Parts: sequence; structure tokens; C-alpha cells
Amino acid sequence: MKSPAARKESPKPLIAITMGDPRGVGPEVVVKALAQESLHRICSPLVLGDRNVLQRTVQFLGLGLKVVEAPEGFLSPLPQGVLAVLSLSRLSPGPNPVEISPEESSRASLAYVEKAGKMVLAGQVEAIVTAPVSKEAITRSGVPFRGHTEFFAQMAGVREFVMMLAGERLRVALVTTHLALNEVSRSLREEKILAVIEITGRGLRDYFGLPHPRIAVAAFNPHAGEGGLFGEEEKTISRAVDRARAIGWGVSGPWPADSLFHRVLQGEYDAVVCMYHDQGLIPLKLLHFDSAVNVTLGLPFVRTSVDHGVAFDIAGQGVASPRSMEEAIKMAARMVLLKRQAT
Amino acid sequence: MKSPAARKESPKPLIAITMGDPRGVGPEVVVKALAQESLHRICSPLVLGDRNVLQRTVQFLGLGLKVVEAPEGFLSPLPQGVLAVLSLSRLSPGPNPVEISPEESSRASLAYVEKAGKMVLAGQVEAIVTAPVSKEAITRSGVPFRGHTEFFAQMAGVREFVMMLAGERLRVALVTTHLALNEVSRSLREEKILAVIEITGRGLRDYFGLPHPRIAVAAFNPHAGEGGLFGEEEKTISRAVDRARAIGWGVSGPWPADSLFHRVLQGEYDAVVCMYHDQGLIPLKLLHFDSAVNVTLGLPFVRTSVDHGVAFDIAGQGVASPRSMEEAIKMAARMVLLKRQAT
Repeated sequence: MKSPAARKESPKPLIAITMGDPRGVGPEVVVKALAQESLHRICSPLVLGDRNVLQRTVQFLGLGLKVVEAPEGFLSPLPQGVLAVLSLSRLSPGPNPVEISPEESSRASLAYVEKAGKMVLAGQVEAIVTAPVSKEAITRSGVPFRGHTEFFAQMAGVREFVMMLAGERLRVALVTTHLALNEVSRSLREEKILAVIEITGRGLRDYFGLPHPRIAVAAFNPHAGEGGLFGEEEKTISRAVDRARAIGWGVSGPWPADSLFHRVLQGEYDAVVCMYHDQGLIPLKLLHFDSAVNVTLGLPFVRTSVDHGVAFDIAGQGVASPRSMEEAIKMAARMVLLKRQAT
Repeated sequence: MKSPAARKESPKPLIAITMGDPRGVGPEVVVKALAQESLHRICSPLVLGDRNVLQRTVQFLGLGLKVVEAPEGFLSPLPQGVLAVLSLSRLSPGPNPVEISPEESSRASLAYVEKAGKMVLAGQVEAIVTAPVSKEAITRSGVPFRGHTEFFAQMAGVREFVMMLAGERLRVALVTTHLALNEVSRSLREEKILAVIEITGRGLRDYFGLPHPRIAVAAFNPHAGEGGLFGEEEKTISRAVDRARAIGWGVSGPWPADSLFHRVLQGEYDAVVCMYHDQGLIPLKLLHFDSAVNVTLGLPFVRTSVDHGVAFDIAGQGVASPRSMEEAIKMAARMVLLKRQAT
């Protein structure tokens, strides 16, 4: 029985962790991360996945974890060394997990994601952390799947959301993501940039403990176009920045992108809004190669993700680094606590 | 009289250093750099500029340098603390150098650059290091001026040249430079990319002591376009890479740009060929904010430059960092010595 003091303590964030594609590195990074007792001290993790696959992965890696099937709605504290799993598939992994068929894997990985979305929307968990799935395999199996983020946004009825990549020293929010660079220019609409600034601002305020976030917006052209000498996109960006400032956000730009990230490291800004994928990902991966976390802002719940793909080429070898998964779980836990304070 | 042993020693590289726009930070970074005896030990510097402006800058900064007008063709060793200047203008700097008129400054700064080109082509000096000029002011004064690099290339009758930015940990060579990002795609011709790879390869071999340079070529689109899913530019880049490999260069790519620079830091490559300005400059400035050197490859002589502009806003205040000028002089000296060995 708990003491009154213990009862007053805020309960640990309850986090659903999807196992990802059973053939990828997802199961491995999940069990490697959750084999660390330190993660259980900051949150109550519930893995949505496949008990057989997880059990086999634990054995293969020689980890001292006990995989236990959790009843739905499971919330009570677990003894050390126990991994709670809500098993949503009954796969029979061979000696090599890649032997599971792509169709079976895709169906299963989609079931984990769907269940996570339902649970978080029903308030049964407070955050989702996702391991990688194969967009291509899921789409080929008959369910068009653009990505976790779009899937959760649709479930939540949200139209505008932002992909932020966050590391210890740098956070970048992307206006465009997986788009041919030559098509980015025509996607840079004023309303879109303004929405990204606002969602980023609210995200930093509500989930990162920054009541007055300082946001820098990167230019699109080299040298910010040198006053229209090369490129006109800076005019659109400027208008969006002006509107965001008028609303009250602490935002500035467009800044020449080449010198901007140095200034972020000097402590000038809390995040950079970037116009295209590589503009944000080049500095981020240079500073945080395997420790960055993918955070979706704009959803009505906390969602983080690893910063890597299924990596079929190294799956089942025991060599995948769980670093990004650890950071994704830690960040989700911190975000839940800050969100509780904010509301 | 020199001993036979001393006579055998290779003479120090003779380097012409242009003073840059008299109203900018050029004079300041030149005298600050050359006040360091260590730079005189590795090269014989000859400043092409204005004696009055340099003298005034030395006084203002309280440096113990004696500015001495050098006769043309001047080559003999100087006593410590002496700065040899080939004075090509007779400006009368006021208490603030910005008081010199833009027309006078532009004419003078162009004269330094032109003289440097003539001297290096005549074999009177072995390298040029340039301080910043104002392209805009020179062009407005009636002489169309696209930049030092283009100016020297024209003097030398060279059509293909490459802007490389080099720091201790990263070297990037640019296929396109000051161009609207939306226009880069149509500039990525196979022949052009091949030329940049080859000039970069020869530059690394002849001037950087790398007999078998390892060159990575960056992709244009995020994730290198994911096999044509977003963008087609990778096909052109691939063809150029294949042709360069067939010639014998140790080159690979196109690689997704976001994870590539991390691999360079791990020691995988000697340089990265980048498709657009910010692709190379973002990681370079993040790693080498004030210590990167601008190197022009493809000219028939050594030319380096500072990595910053005239900075009129801080000129005449004594606060400009000479770091990039020091590195530019050191790199020019090293390149001359390696070039002597190669030829």
C-alpha cells in the first residue's frame, strides 16, 4: 500500500511504444532501450507489438528482460526487469526476423500504430513513441501510408502539423519535408510558413518549458537572396515572419542559413524554422548524428519517434544503436510532464 | 652571407596580399594578421594596398608594425616588425576610414586586385590572398565586377574554376554558388559536375598533398531522391560521378546530404562536392565559423581568400577577427610548398 506522500507524487508518464516493422531494427532498439532500468524510472512504457518477436529478440540479444503480456488498460507498476507488451499480432519469427512475410509484417506494424492512436486519443496513454515501419511495404500491402505523422494527424482530425527534429543543442522545424528540392519554392506559401511558426511556438511553449520561445526563420536562397538579387522567396518568408511577430511570437528572419546555425549554438534561438529538409537535417545530423528525436507538433497528444528507418540491411544482427529510441522515450516523458504543468 | 646549407633551403613562399576595400575590415585584418611574427616565418608577405590607410590602421590598433613602401619586385628578407607594402593608391583616410568616397575606394581596391593578378601571372609572387572588396560598389563605379574569382579567371584565360571552402575538418567544393536556389536544378549539367569533380581532384592532389583524393558527391534532393521518388537530378549527378570514376578519380555519390557530413568527420572523405551554396556552407560554417578559407581551384596559381565580406558595419572599430585572414595566408603558404613539390 502506498504512503500518502507517494500518492501525492505525479504518476510517471504512461507511454505507448510501437514496435515498428517486425523485420526491421524496431524490435531490437525497443528492447535494448527498455532493458535500461533508468527509462522505467522516468516513465511507464507499454510496448504495442508482438510478444513472440520481442521475446525472441530479448533472447537473441541475451538481455535479462521478461516479456509479459499486459492486459488492455494495464497501468500498475511493474517489477524490475519486466517488459509489458500489448500483443497485437501472433507472428512466428524464424531464426531471422526478416523471414516474416512483408504482408504479415505490414499488417501487424499498422495494427500497432492504429492501436497507439486509439489509446492516446482515448486517454489510456499520454504519449506515443514510434519505431520505424516501412511506408513502402505498407502501401504495397494495400493501405496507402504516407507516414506515421500523417496517419496520426488524420486520426486526430488535424490538418496542420510540424515535423521537428530535436537534439540537445539544436531544434529544427520543417516547412517542407520529403519533396523534390526543385518543388520547394512553389510550396512556400505565406500561410503555410506562418502556421509552422505558430505550431513551433506553441510546441516550444507547451512541451519544452519555454514560455517565450525565440524562433529564427531560415532564408531559402544563399545570403538570404541579397535583397532580391537571387530569388524572391524571402519576400514571402518576411511577410509570414511579420504576421507572426504581430501576433506576439518572438520570431525573426529570414536569416542567411549558412551562418544561422552557429548563432543557435551560441544560444541566440530556441529553434530554427527551415524551408526544406536538408537545410534543417544537414546541421542537425552533423551535431546529433544518432541522438536526435523526431517530434510531431500540432497533434493533440505527445508523439516522438526515432530518427532512423527500418534498416532492413542490419536488422537481426544485434548491431543497431538504441540511442535514438532512448532519446525519443526520454523526450516523450519530459514533454508529458511539461504538458501536465501547462494545462 | 648565407651558408651552403641555408642556400639549399627552399625560399619562403612570396605571397601578395590585397588590402581589400579601404573602407571595410580588410586593412584591419591584414595588419592584425601580419603583426604576428609566426606568419612571417612561413612566408614573405607583400601587401598590395595603400600605405596611408595601413599606417593609420596600425596606429589606431596600437600595433608595433612599421609600414614600409616596398620597391616593385621587392624580394629580400625584412627585419622583424616591418610590413612591406606596394602602395597603389594615395588615399587620405580620415579618423574613420569610411569617409573615403566609394568611388575612390572602389577604384583603389580594384587596382590592388589587378596588380596582384599581373604579378602572379608574371611569376613575381607565388600566391594571392585577397581581403574583401565590395562587388556592388565596384560595379556601381562603372566596372562590372562579379567577384575576385571571376576576375582572376578572366585574367588567366581560364573558363572552369571551383570555389572551395576549406577548414581543418571539412572541405566543400561548390557546383553552383550565388544563384537562386530555384535555379540550381537547371544549372546541374553533367559536364559541369564532372568538371568540378576533376578540378577538385587535381586541387587536392596538387595543393593539399593528397595523391589519391577521396571525393564524395552530395545529392540534390532529400534522401538522394529515394530512387526517383522526389526529383530526377540524381540521375545527372550519377552520370557525372560514373564518368569521373572511369577516368580514375576516387569519387562516389550522389549521397544523401544530411548524413554525408558526419561521415566526412569520421574520416571517410577528403572533400565533398556540393550542388548549391548552402548545402556546403551550412556544415562548413557550423564547424569552422571564423576559420574557414576560400580557395579558388582551377587557376594557374594559388589563390586563397578570407571567408567574410567587407563588413562595413564594424569597420574602423578594431573588433574584426583576423582569424580567417591568418588561415588564408597559412593555407596559401602550404599550397605553394606542395605545388613546388608536385612540379
